[in-house]
Amino acid sequence: MTNDRFHLYDTTLRDGAQKEGVSYTVDAKLEVAALLDRLGVGFIEGGWPGAVPKDTEFFRRARSELPLRHATLVAFGATRRPGGTADGDRQVRALLESEAQAVCLVAKADLRHVSDALRTTPEENLAMIEDTVRLLVGEGRRVFVDCEHFFDGYQNDPDYALRVVTRAWDAGAEVAVLCDTNGGMLPMRVHRVVSELRSRTAGRLGIHCQDDTGCAVANTLAAVDAGATHAQCTANGYGERTGNADLFTVVGNLVTKMGMDVLPQGCLAEMTPISRALAEIAGEPTDSAQPYVGSSAFAHKAGLHASAIKVRPELYNHLDPAAVGNTMRILVTELAGRASIELKGRELGLDLAGRTETVGRVVDRIKDMESRGWSFEAADASFELMLRDELGQGVPPFFRLESYRVVVEHRADGVVTSEATVRLHADGERIVATAEGSGPVNALDRALRDALKHLRPELAKVELTDYSVRILATGQGSDAVTRVLITTGDDRHEWTTVGVHDNLIEASWLALEDANRYGVLCGPQPAACAGS
Amino acid sequence: MTNDRFHLYDTTLRDGAQKEGVSYTVDAKLEVAALLDRLGVGFIEGGWPGAVPKDTEFFRRARSELPLRHATLVAFGATRRPGGTADGDRQVRALLESEAQAVCLVAKADLRHVSDALRTTPEENLAMIEDTVRLLVGEGRRVFVDCEHFFDGYQNDPDYALRVVTRAWDAGAEVAVLCDTNGGMLPMRVHRVVSELRSRTAGRLGIHCQDDTGCAVANTLAAVDAGATHAQCTANGYGERTGNADLFTVVGNLVTKMGMDVLPQGCLAEMTPISRALAEIAGEPTDSAQPYVGSSAFAHKAGLHASAIKVRPELYNHLDPAAVGNTMRILVTELAGRASIELKGRELGLDLAGRTETVGRVVDRIKDMESRGWSFEAADASFELMLRDELGQGVPPFFRLESYRVVVEHRADGVVTSEATVRLHADGERIVATAEGSGPVNALDRALRDALKHLRPELAKVELTDYSVRILATGQGSDAVTRVLITTGDDRHEWTTVGVHDNLIEASWLALEDANRYGVLCGPQPAACAGS
Repeated sequence: MTNDRFHLYDTTLRDGAQKEGVSYTVDAKLEVAALLDRLGVGFIEGGWPGAVPKDTEFFRRARSELPLRHATLVAFGATRRPGGTADGDRQVRALLESEAQAVCLVAKADLRHVSDALRTTPEENLAMIEDTVRLLVGEGRRVFVDCEHFFDGYQNDPDYALRVVTRAWDAGAEVAVLCDTNGGMLPMRVHRVVSELRSRTAGRLGIHCQDDTGCAVANTLAAVDAGATHAQCTANGYGERTGNADLFTVVGNLVTKMGMDVLPQGCLAEMTPISRALAEIAGEPTDSAQPYVGSSAFAHKAGLHASAIKVRPELYNHLDPAAVGNTMRILVTELAGRASIELKGRELGLDLAGRTETVGRVVDRIKDMESRGWSFEAADASFELMLRDELGQGVPPFFRLESYRVVVEHRADGVVTSEATVRLHADGERIVATAEGSGPVNALDRALRDALKHLRPELAKVELTDYSVRILATGQGSDAVTRVLITTGDDRHEWTTVGVHDNLIEASWLALEDANRYGVLCGPQPAACAGS
Repeated sequence: MTNDRFHLYDTTLRDGAQKEGVSYTVDAKLEVAALLDRLGVGFIEGGWPGAVPKDTEFFRRARSELPLRHATLVAFGATRRPGGTADGDRQVRALLESEAQAVCLVAKADLRHVSDALRTTPEENLAMIEDTVRLLVGEGRRVFVDCEHFFDGYQNDPDYALRVVTRAWDAGAEVAVLCDTNGGMLPMRVHRVVSELRSRTAGRLGIHCQDDTGCAVANTLAAVDAGATHAQCTANGYGERTGNADLFTVVGNLVTKMGMDVLPQGCLAEMTPISRALAEIAGEPTDSAQPYVGSSAFAHKAGLHASAIKVRPELYNHLDPAAVGNTMRILVTELAGRASIELKGRELGLDLAGRTETVGRVVDRIKDMESRGWSFEAADASFELMLRDELGQGVPPFFRLESYRVVVEHRADGVVTSEATVRLHADGERIVATAEGSGPVNALDRALRDALKHLRPELAKVELTDYSVRILATGQGSDAVTRVLITTGDDRHEWTTVGVHDNLIEASWLALEDANRYGVLCGPQPAACAGS
């Protein structure tokens, strides 16, 4: 089942959950594990049964609720306590009771931590490793040993660090995992140390890196290059402090740069959607600049080179984005010329070939609008609406604004209220709608949607999912121009629109108007719109 | 002035500005350059004069408005056009007219780009490099040549890539910068290629890496390890697609791991505040997991090891956080923060030694407020007001809000108006003031100041100079919590205050209230306040 030549090992559910702000419920853990299995990782570390009640519960439920296609579930735990026996150690028993087929034990590999944190002797630490590994192996478990603080320990006392590694192997552990727990290593040193171990020993080596020098990925690759055949990573690099080596970046590099077949056939293209789904479950924002899977990873501010990118995209991308389930995007900016507009049109399914005059008009309009603070880079839906208008393939205006009024009051009793009234004309009718909201934009959004709901029932499912404000031209304070981006979604897709005005509320209104126009464009004929 | 043994070269203002969503005004560019100079970088690439009007203006204004202590300003540009002369090339002339002492020219080092993007011959490309470098050197400029797509070019046709490098040197360029433009390299290969060049050539080599494999930092270090003595980076790794090598991480590693003295004495500890200030100017969120300077970089979910961490923090941190201006945070204990509050108090001229209870109260209040979205990092004035309140050295409340009302209307004639009314009690009087503004916050600001002007004449000179909005807890759209930062100034200094609320207008009001309280604190006795 697992790819045993190389262990792709995920510890999102244990080490990843150390990230500030991340905390998984048991349900969330089951979802995460299912997604990691779909990606095809070999091992999923599920948590620390016995120590963390939620993790005990996770392993219990996983037995019936988590059918795994590719992965082996791993329980994380510690070696027995100093002075006791492995068999009599409750924490060790809980690892067996979890029924996980594999166990990853953490062991101290730095003498200073043995004395100061574990408060035991160097010999007892080795005995703790040996006893615990032997017991678990005797019970039929596959055992990995995380040699904590290994690289610092190896610098401090190489002989002792090496004894930890060999004692683990001698007791029956399958892999000794070299951990850069404090994350202070650079790839040159990791490569040297792993090469030394490789030349002096014969057991299987693994690697586990934290990102405190921004080199967790590079350190992992350096270790693999030097002979490690087991790599511990976390999804999107979640983890304590600066995080761990990012699973997606490590896999992208191993497969596409180092030619290693670490995922089952066809799984590489699942990386992008799975990365985003895992961010959603963790409640973390996606990182647009994340290698391979970020939304900007293959985005180009085309400018001068748009025509060259159009003809030979492979000269400007280090990889075909489709290989990892991502897509190339051409960003529309003031520097953009005709070629990038045509390219963008093609991306949106609008053929602009031969429409020289239209393209010229669009370029002029963008330049003019961007000089006044508009930006379409992040607002594909507003761009598409404008392009369709110019092409005569737009959404005919289905309402006309007469006026709106937004009132925010901080009342004498201390309560803050927001109320908006919109007056529209549509289908020969005059519609007046009023709504309250948690703030002025929320009230305006509700009033507009309330006014439109009978006319365009497809807008009932649409809702505002993100709102951001940027003040442009600093130095003028609240007199400055305000740019508002609004992301809106229904049950199928999301789209982003932009509004710019001196007045924050009017800027928000303009973005809301576009958001609803685009919702109507998408509503009845989903194929017509590019929102995703 | 510059550290010539090693060139620390920043290209935030040119390559960094390629990041999706980042766009600097000329004022912002001047601020960024001043901060980079304060950090002590050797070279600041300011932009592309002649090609980008904003950049032409930046170099013009920099001559009188940007006194540099450490850095040399660099103009970025291209080699002359195919078939022309360097002297007759308008773009090349603009580089000279910028009066920058150093110029960085981009040159194609991959034959495929020479034919497909530049559409010229291999020989003409070399002549373009030679002519342009000679002209600029002849005019007394220091010249660097960015060998674009060098690593891909070297793989494709090593001889030609090498000819580009040597032609640049022969024409008088000081450094040939090897660029991984598409960002697909891994450190092992970068090390091998730079070592090969080092052994075959004698000129000075530089390195410029994009982060498409998550290895931009490691690739930069690998090149330096192999002999490059010029490293191009961007603040916080801003840049196109996945970004560039992060200046702060590269510097942290060079100084603290590789023992290289790349910053002037005392500047390393400026890294954290400068990184955060640069994020603020770029309008980008700070990355809490950023190595060295992120707010989580030295944060520990202490758990079992809290006492060990307290006693021997060096066993759990790869570095003393103070070295880079950062602080360790223990996420579960009450002890976090005390020391930094005392330190901050001292900075504000408020002695907190021995005021254990007060400091404890402030720590609790901050923790509670930060959990609800407040942040005092950028709002020194709000922090000082709170600290003075707790110490009994505050500004006695000189008015009490009864209520306010803000109305924004988009009228039937298309005009958008904003009007605010505030009702206050002060000095036994009830004051009602109404004002119009360009937007709701501007109207509220004017009404408040109007109400207070007779009571506190010192506020007449005070005005709002910057206003920024951040929406926290995305996923809930306009229901999310809003954080507003307001910068206010009089003829002597500026100060920043913060407000947080569900309602954008109320959040703005809270920041405006603090802004005026602080204005009164500063007004009659300028020495009492730390705003600068």
